[in-house]
Parts: sequence; C-alpha cells; structure tokens
Amino acid sequence: MQPIRVAIVGLGKIARDQHLPAIAGNPDFALAATVSPRGAGLDDVPHFPSLDALIAAGVAVDAVALCTPPQVRYAIAVQALAAGLHVFLEKPPGATLSEVVALEAEAAASGATLFASWHSRYAAGVEPARAFLADRRIDRVTITWREDVRVWHPGQAWIWEAGGLGVFDPGINALSIATRILPKPFFLREAILSLPANRAAPIAARMTFSDAAGTPIAMDLDWRQTGPQTWDILVETDAGDCHLAKGGSVLTLPTGTETQDDHEYPGLYARFATLVRERRSDVDIAPLRLVADAFLRGERETVEAFED
Amino acid sequence: MQPIRVAIVGLGKIARDQHLPAIAGNPDFALAATVSPRGAGLDDVPHFPSLDALIAAGVAVDAVALCTPPQVRYAIAVQALAAGLHVFLEKPPGATLSEVVALEAEAAASGATLFASWHSRYAAGVEPARAFLADRRIDRVTITWREDVRVWHPGQAWIWEAGGLGVFDPGINALSIATRILPKPFFLREAILSLPANRAAPIAARMTFSDAAGTPIAMDLDWRQTGPQTWDILVETDAGDCHLAKGGSVLTLPTGTETQDDHEYPGLYARFATLVRERRSDVDIAPLRLVADAFLRGERETVEAFED
Repeated sequence: MQPIRVAIVGLGKIARDQHLPAIAGNPDFALAATVSPRGAGLDDVPHFPSLDALIAAGVAVDAVALCTPPQVRYAIAVQALAAGLHVFLEKPPGATLSEVVALEAEAAASGATLFASWHSRYAAGVEPARAFLADRRIDRVTITWREDVRVWHPGQAWIWEAGGLGVFDPGINALSIATRILPKPFFLREAILSLPANRAAPIAARMTFSDAAGTPIAMDLDWRQTGPQTWDILVETDAGDCHLAKGGSVLTLPTGTETQDDHEYPGLYARFATLVRERRSDVDIAPLRLVADAFLRGERETVEAFED
Repeated sequence: MQPIRVAIVGLGKIARDQHLPAIAGNPDFALAATVSPRGAGLDDVPHFPSLDALIAAGVAVDAVALCTPPQVRYAIAVQALAAGLHVFLEKPPGATLSEVVALEAEAAASGATLFASWHSRYAAGVEPARAFLADRRIDRVTITWREDVRVWHPGQAWIWEAGGLGVFDPGINALSIATRILPKPFFLREAILSLPANRAAPIAARMTFSDAAGTPIAMDLDWRQTGPQTWDILVETDAGDCHLAKGGSVLTLPTGTETQDDHEYPGLYARFATLVRERRSDVDIAPLRLVADAFLRGERETVEAFED
C-alpha cells in the first residue's frame, strides 16, 4: 500500500517533539509538507505559510495533522475536509464542544476520516487497566495531576487566554484516561477553579465527580508543582487497587507492576492509519464535555498572579 | 386510556404558573401528588417533603415533572427512573452536560421515558419559522433577549450561584429556538460574559456564533432591561426576513404576521404524553452545549454589583 501523505499544520513544540518522530517511525505515513504562519520549516520538506498556500501549490497530500492551538483548529479542519483530506486533531479537538459536533457532521458529509486524538489513552497501562476494571465494583477514584507549567508550556500565551484551557490542558489528559478505563460514565458534582489575578484561564482546580452508583471521584489539578511531577490515577476496587502512574505508563495491579516506554504518539498514528484505511472517524468528546462542565458549573477563586 | 398519573417535584413559580394549569387542561394527565421540601402543597392533592416519602407512602404515580433548580435534578431523576417512573425535566435538563448524557443511559436501561423539555420550542411561531427557513440561504441572524430579572426571577438566589446559569436561564430559551429553526448546526466564536461584582453567574452576555457556511449569528443577552421586554430572533434570508418576536409567539414572514396565544406548556405536555405512550425519550442537549461553550470559551468582565 502507498503511504498516507500527511502534512503537519502548526509546527510548534508538540509537532516537533511527538508528531515528526511518530510519522518518521511509521511506514504507513510519509511527511509531505509542513504549514506554519511563522518560522521556517524542515530541510527537504515543502513548507507553506497556510493550508490555502499548500493546496494552491498542488502538493499531493492525503491527510493533515492539526497541531495548532485549539482556537483556530475548526476553520482549518473544515477547509481540509472540504479539500477531501483526512484530519487528525490534536487534543483538545476544538475550542468548543459545538464546533466538534459540527465538524463530525462535515466529516460525515465529506467521506473523509476525522480523528479526535487523546494521546494519553495510548499510554501503555491504559488498556490493561480498563480490562482489570471492567467487572469490578469501583469504591473510590483519586486523580492527581500536578506539574510545572513553566517546564511544559514555556511562554505559550494562548494557553492562558479565553478559549485556552489553562490547567485543563494537562487535566484533560487525565480525563481522557479516566473516561476510557472506568466502566461507568461519570459527571461533575463540584469544582473550584483557581485563576491567577492576571490570567483568563485556571492554574489549578479541585473537583469531585460521581457516577450513577455514587462512586466518589476526586480530581486535583495543579500547574504550580515544582520538583517531581505527578500524573496518577488510583482506582480502589473490591479486588484491590489499580494504580496508573507517570501519565499511564506505569501500571500497578494487585498482581504486580508493569512499566513500558512511552508509545503514545506511535499508537495514535497506528490508529489514524487504520481509520483512514477503513474510512471511519473516531470522535469522542466526553473528556472535553467534562471540562466544559467544570467551566459551566465551577466556582472561581482568584489566586496569586502568574508570571511566565 | 387511563390518564398518566403525574407528580410535580419542586412546587415553585414555574410549577404553579405553568405546569399545574397545563396538567389540569390535559385529560391525558391526572395530578397525583406534589413534592416540595419546604412549604405547603395544594388542597386535595397528596403532598410530600421528598420523592422518597412519596414512594414510601405507596401513592400510585406513573411520571414525575421535575421543576426543581437544575443543581439537584439529576439525583431525583435517577431515583425516579429507578422506580420505573417517566421523567419530564424542566429546562435546563441538568446542571452539567455529562449528567444529562448519563441520565439518558439510565433512562434507556430502565425503559422509562426521559423528556428534556425546551418550552420555547413550543411557541406558536417556531414550527412555521422552521418550515420557512428549511430551504433558504441564511444571510444573518440577530438574537436579542433582554428582560428584567427582578420581574421574572424575584429573589431566586439559586439562579446566581455556581451551577445556576444567570442570564443564560432565559438565554437558553432563545438558543432552544435557534437550534430548532436554523437549518445548519452552529457554534460559538466569541463570548463576553458580564458578571456582577457580587455574583457567580452572568447578568449579561454578548456572543457571536457561526455555522459551517460562515453565517454570522449575533446574540445579545441582558437581564438589566426595564420597561418593555425584548425576546426577538431576526433571520435575514435570500427570500426576505423571518422575524420571531415575543419569545416566538409572534411570527412575521414576507407574507405577513401571525400572532397566537401562548400554548407552550400545553404543547410540552401533549408531547410528553406521546412520548410516554410510545415509550420513547427526547433529549436534545444542543442548547445547553452552546451555553457550556460560552462558559468554557468566553471572556469575563466584572460589572456593577446586583442587589435583588
């Protein structure tokens, strides 16, 4: 089979750290072009300032991976679908829920594949955790996601603006795992969002969720953690604890601990290849819906100003 | 056929102003009981402080209409569905999107009917407007929803708390009409929410939406309007203007103006009877999704404190 010719749109940190190596390591894909309104491209790969310019140049592409900030993703995705291109959306799939729902309709009409990716779901421990939890009684869930924003998002102003998610940018990764591994859907009960005095998006959040059975699910999100970082989900069950650590790559079950190297983005691209070959879409908005609920229902408190 | 025996849960303003007359006027229903944690019930109708107490008393009911504030609606709805009762949800159907999605799953499992009602969709002009717009090119939409909160929500503290919607409580009515009459789904582009310095929910909001065709849709929501009230939707099309006024009861098309008396709640109960007889549910979260998007993405500004 011919490789899928993919263009990366938005050549920032996530594209360079993750997408380029994953594409280079997967023979199902060939990097056909890059698009970025600012800055240079890569050696030996055609580079354009916009998707318009790429299409006008007649470069042969089958798919685009959208690594731009979420605020501009919808317009580019519609343009790509209209040109018959398959679309890989970085997370979150949009700045709003309604635009993702509208985009699904556009994809269905175009016949192209739309993939709303959640990279953390491809961490090594996630599917084994899901299998372990499928038949258990869940007694309690504790999600702790604490990291240093200065390390992970240095100088990324968009993440603090209205429409950026603030600390929910990493927090949605935890929610993408929790919605995958827990056997029942869950929903928000209470949220307190902590907003720096000089920013429009939260730097921390404390939440409680529940499922229909009343299972307590607590979530502690914080972007102010220096030193060791914490990306943990602890699920207490009638058959013992299921503990995902390091973002899902380390899984401890009553039978022992398994650790595997990161393979999230290779997993995403393998999934995207399958979807494109089978002309299917995969769009799950549950993680973004939970975040929207926290913004809709949460209380807000003002905390110390944050300077990058 | 036997009438559907319905209990009203939450005996506040909307229950007394709208639900009781609509039930009394529809032979498909019989009012079987009322439930309210505070205050007295009606003469000659069994009254209970909770749904638990009603069920424990063995009163024969087939359905409940939940007229409580949205923050407590989910728990009562789950309890009702578990007891095999059909559930009519006042708008909005919940305090969060995810709980409504979870509730749909509970209803499907129970076999009972779940009806997420949007009363404004039953205003007289809505279905004719939808029919007129179905095949038109839409050039511009202007939604103006300005009313006096002191008249419509006197002393209702819950509406200003986190989880209450503030001015989106009436605004969601406009969105329930717009999502019904416009032929394409639309989504938020920008929102500015105005929050009184002493309140957790907005008193006004200015928004722009768009559909995939780029149609501009502007919305102006304000709770500070005294004097004449404004609940208007103007849709400019290639075949002339479609103008819904007075919340949807007055429709002006290029062919003339039609005005009808309010029949929203009678329309809702007729719909609920059909759904119960046919054992179907009707749950459309699109209006609440648009509101959640405004909270998720909107900028916030602080305005003058509001005293009731």
